[in-house]
Amino acid sequence: MTERYKDITIVNGKYNIDILESNNPIFVCVISYTETSEIPGITVAGANKDLIKYTSSADAEFLYYGRCKCINGVPATPDGKPTPAIITKTMLNIGNIPFIVVDSGVKIKPDIPLFSFNLRSGKNISDNIAMESEEVEKAYRYGLILGKQLSKSHDLVILGESIPGGTTTALGVMLSLGIDAENKMSSSMPENPHKLKNTLIRKSMKKSNIAFGSLKNKPFDAISLFGDPMIPSVTGIAQGIIENGGRVMLAGGTQMCCILSILKSLKVKTDKVFIGTTKYIFNDHSADFTNLVLSIDDNVGIVISDLHLIESTKLGLKAFANGFVKEGVGAGGVSIATMINANGKLNGETLLKYIEREYEKTIEKKFTLNEINI
Amino acid sequence: MTERYKDITIVNGKYNIDILESNNPIFVCVISYTETSEIPGITVAGANKDLIKYTSSADAEFLYYGRCKCINGVPATPDGKPTPAIITKTMLNIGNIPFIVVDSGVKIKPDIPLFSFNLRSGKNISDNIAMESEEVEKAYRYGLILGKQLSKSHDLVILGESIPGGTTTALGVMLSLGIDAENKMSSSMPENPHKLKNTLIRKSMKKSNIAFGSLKNKPFDAISLFGDPMIPSVTGIAQGIIENGGRVMLAGGTQMCCILSILKSLKVKTDKVFIGTTKYIFNDHSADFTNLVLSIDDNVGIVISDLHLIESTKLGLKAFANGFVKEGVGAGGVSIATMINANGKLNGETLLKYIEREYEKTIEKKFTLNEINI
Repeated sequence: MTERYKDITIVNGKYNIDILESNNPIFVCVISYTETSEIPGITVAGANKDLIKYTSSADAEFLYYGRCKCINGVPATPDGKPTPAIITKTMLNIGNIPFIVVDSGVKIKPDIPLFSFNLRSGKNISDNIAMESEEVEKAYRYGLILGKQLSKSHDLVILGESIPGGTTTALGVMLSLGIDAENKMSSSMPENPHKLKNTLIRKSMKKSNIAFGSLKNKPFDAISLFGDPMIPSVTGIAQGIIENGGRVMLAGGTQMCCILSILKSLKVKTDKVFIGTTKYIFNDHSADFTNLVLSIDDNVGIVISDLHLIESTKLGLKAFANGFVKEGVGAGGVSIATMINANGKLNGETLLKYIEREYEKTIEKKFTLNEINI
Repeated sequence: MTERYKDITIVNGKYNIDILESNNPIFVCVISYTETSEIPGITVAGANKDLIKYTSSADAEFLYYGRCKCINGVPATPDGKPTPAIITKTMLNIGNIPFIVVDSGVKIKPDIPLFSFNLRSGKNISDNIAMESEEVEKAYRYGLILGKQLSKSHDLVILGESIPGGTTTALGVMLSLGIDAENKMSSSMPENPHKLKNTLIRKSMKKSNIAFGSLKNKPFDAISLFGDPMIPSVTGIAQGIIENGGRVMLAGGTQMCCILSILKSLKVKTDKVFIGTTKYIFNDHSADFTNLVLSIDDNVGIVISDLHLIESTKLGLKAFANGFVKEGVGAGGVSIATMINANGKLNGETLLKYIEREYEKTIEKKFTLNEINI
């Protein structure tokens, strides 16, 4: 930690935060869907089963408009804890950071212009393979193309995701790659349903005759069997950037560990890869984020933002510090980029005020139409 | 003309070429479709009627892969004159200029990642309205959003298009806006079918009770009746960029005059708008490009590139200088950006050698698979 950035911490001591400075960062949000999310108890993203398929598209609309179009209100837990897109949007506005949304197989098309990878949604891995091999290959190939283009203009790309149920599919992929991720995955709920996830994945692996680590060198097979469309898309984008000399910040929690494990399996250099997330993932005692990252690659910089949500007067935001939601839609990584962009003039406490204002405008509905920012 | 850029000319004397210098240009290619192109004699883009719907998607694939996937070979006239995408691709490679493709209602989806505006193709204006008002509004609105995002990262955006039959729909829109474009539109053929286009548009206008200039202040109505999906998409992107302080180069011929006329009708400032095209459009005696531009807006910089195609040993390229094809897929504008990017170290003669090499690889099929550039 340096004084200038009091609310950013690099966990592993090798790096100084200056390494993340950038003149022209961009945020890429990959939205996707897996039917695995429809298994009861897997996700809290979306107030009920019917709403789950709207979650990632509503998040994407929220980033552009500050409100959603495909649903009334904003994505939230049944008792009103909001999507982390609230944080992401606030940061993108403050930092004037450009962003694009990539459609990697959503069920409901959001009412925004988006980068389409023209993919089908992922299947429920308890009774199907997740994706056809051709779809995995296409997602990865399109990702490489997009990553190459992005790296021509941007020296830092922040990659985030929104896919309900994504930690479960990520667990399946990592176990088949030989990464011991059991009981280490985060959840959007404080009562982390490890048992449900573990049982589901073990059954799926058994069904396909896959043991722990037996797809160590076949990451695309692992994705096809147990993954989701977000995983090969983000992997391709990241690799496309890295191979063209750019830096990547994987913005998220344990799902991004899955991306890292595939990059390692593909022997992609990771010296310009960082994982950026929130303090709430880092401190999640129901998971084991840091050791999971280090078990995959102890060279990758782990960067943590503290947004002081524990001090918020808004209960829906304070809940993030108490084990709910915690991260998603690139919230942690984009916060880090915003603080660095501001050269330390904005810290977690000042940013909290802006997040609370966004919360008032959307959750507490004090906004007026002419404040909506396109 | 300055010595440094011997093959770039700014026609109207107000500007120096330096005004187009940029640290981070991007090329945006909007691909689209109008069923108006299916009227016999309207277009030569596509070897026959069934192939027309593949033309713009094949162009887009060519920009990424140096070959097409949705068709064998590359888009070409029946006697083998190639798509101007050959020029565009060569320039993008040499200049390492990033680019994106926007799908604004193509019939056939290309096998590339693309920015989707989720629009239907345009109808044949001889027996339908071109587009529903809601589609015009959506294209324009998505354009504004994309333009705003692009202007955060790029101080110069080069906007090109690929839509067969687009000069005819552009003529319809301009006449209803009160721009005297009759007999001034370029064609991809040396025998410019003015009579066919004029008759078609007059009939369509009569059918809808629209006289010359009667939609002067209703550009969206003009697009809905006589336009195509490319027009509101490019207009929105251009306006989104301009309103956020960026510069726009409309890369094309008389179709881009239509965009300019709509921007003027919408009272958008055009002091940061340029039209960049080829010498072959500028010199086209079957049309009247320069006077058409000046009749719309005498403040707009008209920038012309000379690629010395008349000197080419390749008959398919030499044909561009003899009235065939002439322009398209942003070829002229991207050439200008490439010469400026190279700070005068590349001129039209040196670039011709690279274009001829691309021609050999694709039209003369001397390429090998490992030379294909993704």
